[in-house]
Amino acid sequence: MTHRIAVIAGDGIGTEVMPEGIRALEAAAKQFNIALEFTTFEFGSCDYYLEHGSMLPEDWFEQLKGFDALFYGAVGWPDKVPDHISLWGSLLQFRRQFDQYINLRPCKLMPGIKSPLAGRQPGDIDFYVVRENTEGEYSSVGGKMFGGTDREVVIQDTVMTRTGVDRVLKYAFDLAQTRPRKKLTSATKSNGISITMPYWDERVVEMAKQYPDIAVDKFHIDILTANFVLHPDWFDVVVGSNLFGDILSDLGPACTGTIGIAPSANINPEGHFPSLFEPVHGSAPDIAGKGIANPIGQIWSGAMMLEHLGYKEAADAIVTAIEKVLSEGDSQVLTGDVGGQGTTASLGKAIADTI
Amino acid sequence: MTHRIAVIAGDGIGTEVMPEGIRALEAAAKQFNIALEFTTFEFGSCDYYLEHGSMLPEDWFEQLKGFDALFYGAVGWPDKVPDHISLWGSLLQFRRQFDQYINLRPCKLMPGIKSPLAGRQPGDIDFYVVRENTEGEYSSVGGKMFGGTDREVVIQDTVMTRTGVDRVLKYAFDLAQTRPRKKLTSATKSNGISITMPYWDERVVEMAKQYPDIAVDKFHIDILTANFVLHPDWFDVVVGSNLFGDILSDLGPACTGTIGIAPSANINPEGHFPSLFEPVHGSAPDIAGKGIANPIGQIWSGAMMLEHLGYKEAADAIVTAIEKVLSEGDSQVLTGDVGGQGTTASLGKAIADTI
Ligand SMILES: CC(C)[C@H](C(=O)O)[C@@H](O)C(=O)O
Ligand SMILES: CC(C)[C@H](C(=O)O)[C@@H](O)C(=O)O
Repeated sequence: MTHRIAVIAGDGIGTEVMPEGIRALEAAAKQFNIALEFTTFEFGSCDYYLEHGSMLPEDWFEQLKGFDALFYGAVGWPDKVPDHISLWGSLLQFRRQFDQYINLRPCKLMPGIKSPLAGRQPGDIDFYVVRENTEGEYSSVGGKMFGGTDREVVIQDTVMTRTGVDRVLKYAFDLAQTRPRKKLTSATKSNGISITMPYWDERVVEMAKQYPDIAVDKFHIDILTANFVLHPDWFDVVVGSNLFGDILSDLGPACTGTIGIAPSANINPEGHFPSLFEPVHGSAPDIAGKGIANPIGQIWSGAMMLEHLGYKEAADAIVTAIEKVLSEGDSQVLTGDVGGQGTTASLGKAIADTI
Repeated sequence: MTHRIAVIAGDGIGTEVMPEGIRALEAAAKQFNIALEFTTFEFGSCDYYLEHGSMLPEDWFEQLKGFDALFYGAVGWPDKVPDHISLWGSLLQFRRQFDQYINLRPCKLMPGIKSPLAGRQPGDIDFYVVRENTEGEYSSVGGKMFGGTDREVVIQDTVMTRTGVDRVLKYAFDLAQTRPRKKLTSATKSNGISITMPYWDERVVEMAKQYPDIAVDKFHIDILTANFVLHPDWFDVVVGSNLFGDILSDLGPACTGTIGIAPSANINPEGHFPSLFEPVHGSAPDIAGKGIANPIGQIWSGAMMLEHLGYKEAADAIVTAIEKVLSEGDSQVLTGDVGGQGTTASLGKAIADTI
């Protein structure tokens, strides 16, 4: 059985790290006898927008929906196209139209990577952020009244549905059940955001009844961000709304020193639509074109894609190879952000060779 | 001229740290010849709620509006009263009815306090978070439809007004102008929250035109929280909406190791209504009643109150006394959270004596 992968490199360093992501996937595919077929698309980038006036062609949904997964680089180049246009016109379309309602991001302190937190060792930080990825604070409902006057008022709705909340909670509880510590933390702000967040809390209590073996706690988002810094070892699976999950899944990798190398998965768990795998980092216009971007985020995202396709062993082999190359610490191989003088290609090749 | 201060100790450790806050204020008042008169109120606590069925008496506004400032301890005791009731029934009423539209919190790495961030020294982290304190994400507009069914949907509006946004921005720009680095950072999320946040950005651009001497930048809230951890030295004055300011003003103090001792001011800059000064920490039911809570947050909040009343020198004297006692590091004096075996009273007394 051949798995068909749609490849969209996007903008900036997205186009540089993508070949290394594919190189690692091909190495793992060979090793574990997996048939992968890659199809590259030019759309979903700001250059495409400048040429066509939209980020995606009209029939993008038809073109992509038959693939087994989307492998995405990075999108956005504010000097060419404002972020809210490039992102709402591509990534956020995929997430919503393909009902990728789970955004999953590991936060793991890797060997050889220095945490900005004092005294933390690999093993101390190892948790997942599960983010609701289709509704909540990222709504398109609202508008402006009395525009251009002193009475100007702008309103935007946060929308939570029982379907939307329950399914992300279920996924998070299920994930917690696969982990040794069986612990779930809910991000809330029900003491301040007085309608949607108490509802979120209620659904957590309801869902928890079906998982008596999971230890559940909750923190308001303000103190939760503080606790990511003060007690990152407390966390195992952290579940949050679209916005809270977004914040926590940048802060978490930052605490592990891996913001430049963290991966993410945008998942439609039922497999009705393709899921999308992308590094957490953006297109980084400032270093684009130099061949010095760290490709680990892309490669690690490829590992998450293999796991999603059912190849856990192959996925683990990629992560192990990343850890090995990082802990060897060869400065000719590693890129500048992790203390070396190597290139995107040297690091990508070392990881592929290790697989 | 006598300044009349309304004192509301609230719940839990609020009642324990308040006497030390007053002790320090009285020491500074004596030293600098300031006439302060304290009037204590029992309402605004969960015990008051249990007795009276509401957090505040009906005429609280009349009772309090003539005071020059409110000195507040901490409110909330979830086992007695759910947080959203106790907080919306007290603190959030004060903020809104007294139009305390600025929430100001210093984030400063103090001598003798260990930062959870690796290798940071006093001097490295010294910035203010300016938070919009009356509108934005903390709205009471919204509701639930199809309750109890699978179609259940819950909606809450974020509401931003030009008045509300511009005045907090103006305050933040003015504050930046008093600082040596003259730098302002705006917290946004205009790439995801597509209506209110682009509006916030627009108003920042507009306001910046009136402050050509201020260096302005902006970050999306996700990467901004990451940068608090990775580059806390980048920041001078950080301005954010109600929710983003809330998050950043917990995370900032956490990064300086001072979440238990950070102060805050809820300010009505025009002085039409009294401003409110309170520690960042909550009522801490877990350690309440033991006399071991650190009173510095309350004392430092008192310093902010004096500064607000026009006594900058007296305020500085309190902060200097706090720094001195912390750097002396006498374990008989300091409370457990900062490495000592002392009590709320021993630490409060040492600071008052030093003033
Ligand atoms: C207690 C809560 C409602 C409050 C807030 O979110 O404003 C608190 O976190 C704060 O920052 O003062
Ligand atoms: C680019 C932006 C719209 C996006 C988000 O907020 O979802 C990004 O921060 C992410 O986390 O994937």
